[in-house]
Amino acid sequence: MTRLTLAIDAMGGDYGPRVTVPAAMQALDAHSQLHLLLVGDPGKITPLLATTDSALTARLQIIAAESVIASDAKPSLAIRHSRGSSMRIALELVKEGKAQACVSAGNTGALMGLAKLLLKPLDGIERPALMTVLPHQQKGKTVVLDLGANVDSNATMLVQFAIMGAVMAEEVLGIDKPRVALLNIGQEETKGLDTIRTASAILKTAPEINYIGYVEGNDLLTGKTDVLVCDGFVGNVTLKTMEGVVRMFLSLLKSQGEGKKQAWWLKLLGRWIQKRLVRRFGHLNPDQYNGACLLGLRGTVIKSHGAANQYAFMAAIEQAEQTVRRQIPERIAARLEAVLPKSD
Amino acid sequence: MTRLTLAIDAMGGDYGPRVTVPAAMQALDAHSQLHLLLVGDPGKITPLLATTDSALTARLQIIAAESVIASDAKPSLAIRHSRGSSMRIALELVKEGKAQACVSAGNTGALMGLAKLLLKPLDGIERPALMTVLPHQQKGKTVVLDLGANVDSNATMLVQFAIMGAVMAEEVLGIDKPRVALLNIGQEETKGLDTIRTASAILKTAPEINYIGYVEGNDLLTGKTDVLVCDGFVGNVTLKTMEGVVRMFLSLLKSQGEGKKQAWWLKLLGRWIQKRLVRRFGHLNPDQYNGACLLGLRGTVIKSHGAANQYAFMAAIEQAEQTVRRQIPERIAARLEAVLPKSD
Repeated sequence: MTRLTLAIDAMGGDYGPRVTVPAAMQALDAHSQLHLLLVGDPGKITPLLATTDSALTARLQIIAAESVIASDAKPSLAIRHSRGSSMRIALELVKEGKAQACVSAGNTGALMGLAKLLLKPLDGIERPALMTVLPHQQKGKTVVLDLGANVDSNATMLVQFAIMGAVMAEEVLGIDKPRVALLNIGQEETKGLDTIRTASAILKTAPEINYIGYVEGNDLLTGKTDVLVCDGFVGNVTLKTMEGVVRMFLSLLKSQGEGKKQAWWLKLLGRWIQKRLVRRFGHLNPDQYNGACLLGLRGTVIKSHGAANQYAFMAAIEQAEQTVRRQIPERIAARLEAVLPKSD
Repeated sequence: MTRLTLAIDAMGGDYGPRVTVPAAMQALDAHSQLHLLLVGDPGKITPLLATTDSALTARLQIIAAESVIASDAKPSLAIRHSRGSSMRIALELVKEGKAQACVSAGNTGALMGLAKLLLKPLDGIERPALMTVLPHQQKGKTVVLDLGANVDSNATMLVQFAIMGAVMAEEVLGIDKPRVALLNIGQEETKGLDTIRTASAILKTAPEINYIGYVEGNDLLTGKTDVLVCDGFVGNVTLKTMEGVVRMFLSLLKSQGEGKKQAWWLKLLGRWIQKRLVRRFGHLNPDQYNGACLLGLRGTVIKSHGAANQYAFMAAIEQAEQTVRRQIPERIAARLEAVLPKSD
């Protein structure tokens, strides 16, 4: 494997460097060809590196940034005043070719806007989309998009999301002719919003897409489709709902039996079985698949959950590494060129 | 308690009389003051009553209906040709005062449309909304609406949903000044769709509503709010997503350890602990809270899941019984009169 450099917005997210710096060290430890540019306040980053092995810090560089975009800032305003911020500098490093991808847990709207502004959409893409890969019940995976890069989407955008999702499923998941579905409130033709019905009509006539029709919310994890397409609002709510339920189950499992009067051997056995259950459901733990990929740009940008812990942020860094190694933006661009009508 | 009569669309849903008739008998057995009008094909209903106790059948009457509205029929078309159908006759029985509520597992769109046509919305309500009560982690309950009575909603409709939801939480859950939130993709003011932001601005100025702002999908089951308001498309997808995840967990729990080579005593103990876990999570089982209530009409209509089993359909009948006993439509009407601006 060849050397690979990623730019990390070290200041973004709810916990900033406290999470991003240890996660970065962990990623360097796990991937020997990885180099990281930590963008942020050196005064906050350096102390966190004090006890670190110098073999790791050799593959790490701190890039100073003066400011941080607040998580609750209004995106349009934040973008206007973004010069010198850790997020913008991290994206500029990608634009200038000094890094091959950028990872940030910061303000989603600002990241989407700045990424589009600096890295530009691919030819034929109106709007980039946030995509993630969810594990499903059949031990496979489903590509889901848009997860909130756009608040609402028209039919053309949904069709473009479908094409990008299909490329992801083929290239990253290795699925031949991946099944593509639209998320809707019923499986019948007549159901749902106009935009969805129009997108459905277009997808039916697209020979290069294996379009299978509508899928409902309860089939999100059943593996009924390889690619699930929806607008950003619905995708965001759906993903967060799913994560909320999974987290609740995992915490209930862990707390089961606590504080109850039980024989010691029963307690011990109970705990042992719980541990096995937690492990069995572990692949559904949102931390495992943290990191949504912004598709449709001339560069790779990974958005981590704002509330990501070290483990989850490390997963986002690894997703960036994978996306670069598999040349996702290049492959999507090539497929779009073949599929989309020429604009000139 | 006084006598109470419900009209049951015995033909609706994926399984028709095979589910609705046994569920009706179970409800009659559990509630001695309940009378049921089973609307449908007598040739299909009667054989299912053959072995039933005559004390129960005394409180049951079969009302013949010639046709059934198909679950996948286009609502507008189905409504136009609804005369003589089991769903329409069940609603007409409510309209004529022969039954106090109607329960159907049939075509959602047709049921919403026919109910609005026959039972009329309350003064001040533009569109009725589908509402359900979900159990949450704090051992309380959350009122959620709209779950799909309307495909999309404007700000005024969202505000009306909020008022109806607040009345439900007060009257049915006994919560004083229930917290009301809008489902959105972020908690900041600037997030989300225009309609949601406009509804938020209106709710902030409504003194009779304890409006707490936006809530995200991951807080659906955390008990952060007593009433959660969203448009019908998002509500439907969210609820189905949640149900899908819960069902998957319950089935994984049940199958845990199956087929593995284990000592018999370990298997036995494992199964015992699983049973306890399944019971502990049982209150989240979608079957337990089947039955969405159509709010905003001059009458009570309960929509059961199309795929409801006997247990779930019985829960829907019980919800109808409760809604009538608590005089929900009357209470909503009284509150709306106090809260909404007079139209004349």
